[in-house]
Amino acid sequence: MKLYDCATAPSPRRVRIFAAEKGIEIEKVEIDLAAGEQFSPEFRVINPDCVVPVLELEDGSRITEVPAICQYLEEIYPQPALFGNTPEERANAIMWNTKVEQQGLLAMRDAFRNSAKGLKGHALTGPVAAEQIPQLAERGRQCVGTFFGRLEQQLSGNDFVAGAHFSIADITALVFADFTRWIKIDIPEDAANLRRWYAAVSSRPSASA
Amino acid sequence: MKLYDCATAPSPRRVRIFAAEKGIEIEKVEIDLAAGEQFSPEFRVINPDCVVPVLELEDGSRITEVPAICQYLEEIYPQPALFGNTPEERANAIMWNTKVEQQGLLAMRDAFRNSAKGLKGHALTGPVAAEQIPQLAERGRQCVGTFFGRLEQQLSGNDFVAGAHFSIADITALVFADFTRWIKIDIPEDAANLRRWYAAVSSRPSASA
Repeated sequence: MKLYDCATAPSPRRVRIFAAEKGIEIEKVEIDLAAGEQFSPEFRVINPDCVVPVLELEDGSRITEVPAICQYLEEIYPQPALFGNTPEERANAIMWNTKVEQQGLLAMRDAFRNSAKGLKGHALTGPVAAEQIPQLAERGRQCVGTFFGRLEQQLSGNDFVAGAHFSIADITALVFADFTRWIKIDIPEDAANLRRWYAAVSSRPSASA
Repeated sequence: MKLYDCATAPSPRRVRIFAAEKGIEIEKVEIDLAAGEQFSPEFRVINPDCVVPVLELEDGSRITEVPAICQYLEEIYPQPALFGNTPEERANAIMWNTKVEQQGLLAMRDAFRNSAKGLKGHALTGPVAAEQIPQLAERGRQCVGTFFGRLEQQLSGNDFVAGAHFSIADITALVFADFTRWIKIDIPEDAANLRRWYAAVSSRPSASA
């Protein structure tokens, strides 16, 4: 297997942490997003959506989209389970992973891509040009704050985002929380449960993957 | 099991079609989104995110988010498989389902919610107030058109969205295609493969679920 990766980008980091938790070694091919390598003719063949991560299998077929890559790795390397061990646990992990993506990561992406100076004309990931919308950046910032509140509430009764066990939802939430520094938002001072959770997950060896 | 539903909304329709394909009968509780029932104190207990669908299990626990509900139903009622039969097929179905969600449904949601007269102040689903952003509605419309092109390309070499077999990705894509009528966009005349696919999937009995 081979992972088309970018060391500084949030999405491929989700896969790197996921693989590290399972102890899987994957060959990495660095794509220089800052230099626009994702738009090169060569990379468009690998992923027409012009984004990383992409997992290439031994037979040359390719999987894109983080939930699909992680689901595949979970099936091929089941232990430790990062989606849970029962249908109910798996539903809960996918539910929370989806909430973090939709309410957290997407809001963060809106906030960042619609305001960063280097992304003028690239407010959307992928090959389509899109002008920045300052109002959307502002709305994204507000939603990031709102979602920190939602996470604090969830973590007040649970050790981890999806309940009693570390799961894919914690990986996505950790990447989200670190990503918010890019727009100079920090975990609220009074979010004690979120801060306790953040200290725990960010000190796992996988966090540096 | 019990499904909190809304007959006219796109997201719960994905679950209804998924269940119909498997021949599962689920008791339905209609939530009147047009009247704002999702914001009632009673419904906030059921789902603090104030959206449907919600699947309530016999023990009273609840699953929200379409990918989580469908994954649960797939495990409990494995046949016919709607995620595929091998790790590779499942990765492919989840990959394409994610693409349709991210590039299709979310763009459509941006286009609709940021322009519909009845949704002023409610440009986001959920409990948080958000003003409409006309520029975002326009960007959403453009992305819907772009994604129809992406689907046409994918369906030029495949019978179904994720490959040779009907899957959850077709359900999401059908709901997306029908949803685009709400903003008066139709499948392009010259998208022959997309039109062939649409005729096939929309004539399945499950499409009326």
